[in-house]
Amino acid sequence: MSLAMYQVSVPVFVHMLGNLTAILDKASAHAEAKKIDPSVFINSRLAPDMYPLSRQVQIATDMVKGCAARLAGIEVPSYEDNETSFAELQARIAKTVVFLQSVTAAQIDGSEERKITLKFGSKEAHFLGQAYLLDFVYPNFYFHLTTAYAILRHNGLELGKQDFLGNIY
Amino acid sequence: MSLAMYQVSVPVFVHMLGNLTAILDKASAHAEAKKIDPSVFINSRLAPDMYPLSRQVQIATDMVKGCAARLAGIEVPSYEDNETSFAELQARIAKTVVFLQSVTAAQIDGSEERKITLKFGSKEAHFLGQAYLLDFVYPNFYFHLTTAYAILRHNGLELGKQDFLGNIY
Repeated sequence: MSLAMYQVSVPVFVHMLGNLTAILDKASAHAEAKKIDPSVFINSRLAPDMYPLSRQVQIATDMVKGCAARLAGIEVPSYEDNETSFAELQARIAKTVVFLQSVTAAQIDGSEERKITLKFGSKEAHFLGQAYLLDFVYPNFYFHLTTAYAILRHNGLELGKQDFLGNIY
Repeated sequence: MSLAMYQVSVPVFVHMLGNLTAILDKASAHAEAKKIDPSVFINSRLAPDMYPLSRQVQIATDMVKGCAARLAGIEVPSYEDNETSFAELQARIAKTVVFLQSVTAAQIDGSEERKITLKFGSKEAHFLGQAYLLDFVYPNFYFHLTTAYAILRHNGLELGKQDFLGNIY
């Protein structure tokens, strides 16, 4: 008995993006109910040199579309990063979920030692599939999901851990 | 080729707790350099009804000591939750790492379908090992690590993503 790369990636990502969708729905409804300009939430940051909510959502989705594509050995979908409303952020998440669900277990399973190269400007980082998933994608994905949640909590939105975890028990 | 439960748990936890230790070292040094009472950081929260930094560190360590013990089928170490200084929080992390490193791959591998029961007051949650690790421990662990980081960033500590991820590329 053992874990397969697909199980440890795509279904987890889809589940957590579903939770993010529900959290952004609550934020959007709260902004409307309180007559707060939604862009106040969307542009909010926890520190002046941290990214705003919109960019947190963009990077969270980038992490998992990049992961599924690279583990499967297919092209990473490119998005424009131009979302400025809750509806646009939700559309980006939905588009990411559709892509994730288009990648099959057969494409991803066995990718533990697939060579992955990431480019950061002129620098390159080299990983094998398993380390890429566990040491790069997971911490980054959860970092940006949590920061999105924390930005909304810091701005007074009523959320609890259950919103973050989803309906798991 | 496939992933083993041990690889997806203990080494990842030890790595991330090492990063947390380094982050708290920076926070402690910053407090000393700026002559800020360390308890300002340790008691800081992102929202009035979110936990302070100290509790974030306590829960992050709880998640992974609980995970390693439950997957291995051994008793979960009990800590007092009385840390009020950076030194005490660092000692808790160090104690957690020692415990994690005492659990072997042979004890954890094959625990994908081990029955895990968590008690929350009078309620119980039931998981199999794999879902417990991927759907409960991972998101909770990263949630509390990220929130600890975000509390310190929000309070002006200079940290970057590399501090969170550690030296992975």
